[in-house]
Amino acid sequence: MPKADSQLLAANQLPMIVAMQESASEEQIQQVIEHLVKMGFEVHRSTGVRQTVLGAVGARADFDIRELELLSGVDQVHRISAPYKLAGRSFRPEGTIVKLPNGVEIGGNKVVVMAGPCSVESREQLFAAAEQVANAGARVLRGGAFKPRSSPYSFQGLGEEAVKLLREAGDKFKLLVISEVMEISQIPVMAAYVDILQVGARNMQNFNLLRELGKVRKPVLLKRGIAATLEELLLSAEYIMAGGNYEVILCERGIRTFETYTRNTMDISAIPIIHKLSHLPMTADPSHGTGRRDKVAPMARAAVAAGCDALLIEVHHDADHALSDGAQSLYPEQFRKLMDELRIIAPAVGRTIA
Amino acid sequence: MPKADSQLLAANQLPMIVAMQESASEEQIQQVIEHLVKMGFEVHRSTGVRQTVLGAVGARADFDIRELELLSGVDQVHRISAPYKLAGRSFRPEGTIVKLPNGVEIGGNKVVVMAGPCSVESREQLFAAAEQVANAGARVLRGGAFKPRSSPYSFQGLGEEAVKLLREAGDKFKLLVISEVMEISQIPVMAAYVDILQVGARNMQNFNLLRELGKVRKPVLLKRGIAATLEELLLSAEYIMAGGNYEVILCERGIRTFETYTRNTMDISAIPIIHKLSHLPMTADPSHGTGRRDKVAPMARAAVAAGCDALLIEVHHDADHALSDGAQSLYPEQFRKLMDELRIIAPAVGRTIA
Amino acid sequence: MPKADSQLLAANQLPMIVAMQESASEEQIQQVIEHLVKMGFEVHRSTGVRQTVLGAVGARADFDIRELELLSGVDQVHRISAPYKLAGRSFRPEGTIVKLPNGVEIGGNKVVVMAGPCSVESREQLFAAAEQVANAGARVLRGGAFKPRSSPYSFQGLGEEAVKLLREAGDKFKLLVISEVMEISQIPVMAAYVDILQVGARNMQNFNLLRELGKVRKPVLLKRGIAATLEELLLSAEYIMAGGNYEVILCERGIRTFETYTRNTMDISAIPIIHKLSHLPMTADPSHGTGRRDKVAPMARAAVAAGCDALLIEVHHDADHALSDGAQSLYPEQFRKLMDELRIIAPAVGRTIA
Amino acid sequence: MPKADSQLLAANQLPMIVAMQESASEEQIQQVIEHLVKMGFEVHRSTGVRQTVLGAVGARADFDIRELELLSGVDQVHRISAPYKLAGRSFRPEGTIVKLPNGVEIGGNKVVVMAGPCSVESREQLFAAAEQVANAGARVLRGGAFKPRSSPYSFQGLGEEAVKLLREAGDKFKLLVISEVMEISQIPVMAAYVDILQVGARNMQNFNLLRELGKVRKPVLLKRGIAATLEELLLSAEYIMAGGNYEVILCERGIRTFETYTRNTMDISAIPIIHKLSHLPMTADPSHGTGRRDKVAPMARAAVAAGCDALLIEVHHDADHALSDGAQSLYPEQFRKLMDELRIIAPAVGRTIA
Repeated sequence: MPKADSQLLAANQLPMIVAMQESASEEQIQQVIEHLVKMGFEVHRSTGVRQTVLGAVGARADFDIRELELLSGVDQVHRISAPYKLAGRSFRPEGTIVKLPNGVEIGGNKVVVMAGPCSVESREQLFAAAEQVANAGARVLRGGAFKPRSSPYSFQGLGEEAVKLLREAGDKFKLLVISEVMEISQIPVMAAYVDILQVGARNMQNFNLLRELGKVRKPVLLKRGIAATLEELLLSAEYIMAGGNYEVILCERGIRTFETYTRNTMDISAIPIIHKLSHLPMTADPSHGTGRRDKVAPMARAAVAAGCDALLIEVHHDADHALSDGAQSLYPEQFRKLMDELRIIAPAVGRTIA
Repeated sequence: MPKADSQLLAANQLPMIVAMQESASEEQIQQVIEHLVKMGFEVHRSTGVRQTVLGAVGARADFDIRELELLSGVDQVHRISAPYKLAGRSFRPEGTIVKLPNGVEIGGNKVVVMAGPCSVESREQLFAAAEQVANAGARVLRGGAFKPRSSPYSFQGLGEEAVKLLREAGDKFKLLVISEVMEISQIPVMAAYVDILQVGARNMQNFNLLRELGKVRKPVLLKRGIAATLEELLLSAEYIMAGGNYEVILCERGIRTFETYTRNTMDISAIPIIHKLSHLPMTADPSHGTGRRDKVAPMARAAVAAGCDALLIEVHHDADHALSDGAQSLYPEQFRKLMDELRIIAPAVGRTIA
Repeated sequence: MPKADSQLLAANQLPMIVAMQESASEEQIQQVIEHLVKMGFEVHRSTGVRQTVLGAVGARADFDIRELELLSGVDQVHRISAPYKLAGRSFRPEGTIVKLPNGVEIGGNKVVVMAGPCSVESREQLFAAAEQVANAGARVLRGGAFKPRSSPYSFQGLGEEAVKLLREAGDKFKLLVISEVMEISQIPVMAAYVDILQVGARNMQNFNLLRELGKVRKPVLLKRGIAATLEELLLSAEYIMAGGNYEVILCERGIRTFETYTRNTMDISAIPIIHKLSHLPMTADPSHGTGRRDKVAPMARAAVAAGCDALLIEVHHDADHALSDGAQSLYPEQFRKLMDELRIIAPAVGRTIA
Repeated sequence: MPKADSQLLAANQLPMIVAMQESASEEQIQQVIEHLVKMGFEVHRSTGVRQTVLGAVGARADFDIRELELLSGVDQVHRISAPYKLAGRSFRPEGTIVKLPNGVEIGGNKVVVMAGPCSVESREQLFAAAEQVANAGARVLRGGAFKPRSSPYSFQGLGEEAVKLLREAGDKFKLLVISEVMEISQIPVMAAYVDILQVGARNMQNFNLLRELGKVRKPVLLKRGIAATLEELLLSAEYIMAGGNYEVILCERGIRTFETYTRNTMDISAIPIIHKLSHLPMTADPSHGTGRRDKVAPMARAAVAAGCDALLIEVHHDADHALSDGAQSLYPEQFRKLMDELRIIAPAVGRTIA
């Protein structure tokens, strides 16, 4: 058993509490105790005036809390420990700093800005954007290579060629490179060329993909799904870490709510919450988080003010003619202005802009 | 260009309305008109006392409405036609009946019940469940073959062996067979053995998978994502249909809301809404929709009363020892009782239980 | 102290569990214990290999769980008992049947249908509607008297005159009468004329109003707020019951979700959940729950199939000219057809239509 | 008719678009046109190859868009103008600055901080808090006077005495005063003593209260309901303004989402969105927006970085013994530190802290 696995198992010696209904009979209580023992738990019983409460401690990692909730006489079941361990703050109380080439660090004193076009459309487009974001102070170049789109007639991305162009542009302008990996089959080419592998919101719970990324020795930036709780985000990070890859960077990019003015509601509070629950770096993507160019700068400023470790921002040298998501891409001059604003804000949280 | 493609393109001659702000200048209005013309639209202008409104009609399928919303002087942009066409009710006003072997039809006068275990665990388990659901009146056997789980230590499914067992059990008990396809690589073996290919909620927007399923000539049951609007569900159906596979069956299985008592909130209203918007059969999965055994029967009854065309129900011959999702599986006797209740309800909507 | 109050206090001897962080120091643990003792709790300590867990039992009703969550060294805090008592199933395991005049019972074997116009607009309109719903089998006449509207220019209701007309129409057609009370000042006139006082979704947490309704000796139908959890609904019921009025009837009328096709998403699963958690009758309002006439009948059927105890349905004798919410009012012939469908469905849940 | 009323009516000459189904018959089209004409609209018809679109312009303010959606042959209905006018940006493109005594302005170049305890508990407590927040740089003292609580045994507020204490403390420490008005009957005493009347989230759609506040000549701070869209917030503002009170200040305080870690999810993006849609000042309440002391400072910083015009922050001189909401109140030293951080951030958006 690899080391990470045994740690995960150890982590799952979860204390669990089962509160019986007031009306529960002794027979029902005994059946629940029996059930817990069969599941491999050790049981501690506390009999109160009104209600009996059972504490369960044990080694089984994959039980389903609902099985207990449905036993007769059971009132409530609570997990007492978080269902993740490697991703939890107590695993590394001092916090994780992901160390990248060129001295770039995510999770340290510098807020790292990752910027570039939504999709890599051509060498010319990519190099123009790369030069502009580098000059403005970005340290990482972002750009989509594979772009499955909701319309079968939309631009689908340049694929492997895009990945190579990213590397080339990154090297030329002294930028690291991040791009999204969408399927297991894309991992080798991605891992060969990029510095950070990005997992998109729709793949946050693609466990087969996460398992493979656990075997890679490159940092993974994992985006929160639009309907994912923060606990689920941490469980997905745990999945990667259980495979031995501890270089996981988390990212908020908007959740789905009843508000319809923006595509998603960017949950800025996720930043301080993740910093409390986990040691992993927490970043923000205000471009996808809002979906509208005019909201990107305010939300990028808010994310830095709330303490994010890095930003992912779409910048297109000619956003009006972008082949995808132009509406959420900043114009280069907007990006430069935003960088200046971020430089004012970062000291308020004891940081500088990388 | 294949026929379905040209139909889709034709469908996308979408009239669109751009309402200018009251304060918009003539120059701003001209820029918006120019922009629309460049995008390939024909523009009709209506100048009011207070506000100018532009109507755009054109052939471009993949435009992003936000690009227009962000132009200066623009107040609001509305698509006037639905962004799907093949999936829309007006494409087949009489409704689609998916015809399957053994005379089973989904979308006709009979409500079809598909039942079986969450996962295929063994020949013994599957055959026991198959016999029980067949005797109770189910027409289709369900069972998961590939089970990527949130814990790397959980049961992961029997894979191809499970698919073959499903076929064998189906043939023995005169049941058709449905199982979930999770990756493109699983399509060939699935298509060889099962009667309906199921797409899970997490893959509802896996467009690469949808595109490949458009090439298959087997019915596809497409589940709504937990954060997907009904319009998005229909867009995903459109994606499959655009490839030429018109045998798409839709399925409600719960959406994520603020209510935490159940995993998801099953949206029963999706059934009459889809029936209004689309000609495709609409089904319901109360097992995943509620996640709790004691809520499955009430929601199954509700779905039939609301007019669903078929039900997907998890039944395990020994639910307390199921390797996955036992908590939402009915006991066989519960399933038999439910079938009796459904037989009472179906005539209220002019149906019988198949 | 009135009897209900002392019961409520007794109910709040809540066992609570405080799980300390693995890294918590002995000093932090002692501080939490001290804090709990100061709050009036008795504390039981369980020291594990990895983590210390404290059980707190005590008499203080109004503590705020967050105060504990924020103490240093605390990992998680769980209430073990439900925060309501009088509304909980164990208070009356056999279920509550609200007994009304004319032998009408809500919560018994008959599903009661309450129907009528959204607003009382005139004697002629009300009497026409009352006659139609009575003939179709409704037992209770509904109708709004006070109608604060989102536009100051909309019809605002007839007020006290409407209440008297409701009584008169009810008496003439042998119907009981229900109407919404929106402010404390309206209680006396309402209580004098109607059989059931309705609290609207927006007032579900108007605690001053609930407190006054606790003093009334008439049944109260309490609607779930559009953003209220079922636990919050039960807490509001508890508020009324704590005042001594135990005749509370609950009602689902749609919650706000990300889906935009309907105004609200009607949560049918609330029906079986409330029946499990509480002894109070649970009803459904598909008119407000969907907001669209063509969805009312399917959702009404679904609610009965899921086990609701009563239905609230808007019917207007001339819905196209209704002064409010005409779009969600059934035409009389639609209502008659629905009643026939409900008569088919009710036996599936061992009921008849009253 | 008062001036504001006629403006509102004028505002409601809304262009509306009705798109007919492709399959709509000429008869259906004529019926819709007739219906629109009866409703008082002027109709413009545009007959396309595939679909007919009707444009409706007219004077009727209170129509219900759903009535049209349900007519046979209708595909979609869109309002083209916003349903609010006085609250809309185009009513005062330059923005509203609410001018208060002592030279305090909300909506200008200074971000105003309003701080104080959740509830006024005693003279000693209030004066201690007032002195501390004044010294740290707050300009407005907040404090609840009437506190209806979810438990009938909780502290209910000091009422009128609290309002007078607020005034006294405000005058002593040169602070303006804001407090929440919960019922119409509280308006006179509130208006006599406080500088800003606050409307809580639960009352955002209490239209009777809003109407009365429209007659008051004091600024009103209107909080967004936890399930309210931004359009609904603006409609509620419109309600107050229609009465002639144009001094409305809006406030984000968290919306309900599926995420359960915090009570509500604070929607920071509401700040730039309201600034685009409306001329009214937009403020933020991170205390209620997060419900947890340790999240208040990050979210307060984020709100200023996103451009808010003022902040509402709970500060208790002894938060651990607060009688209400102590868990979300900052300690005085935390508040001072936060003020220092805000002073760093404000220049990034061209502001200073008042």
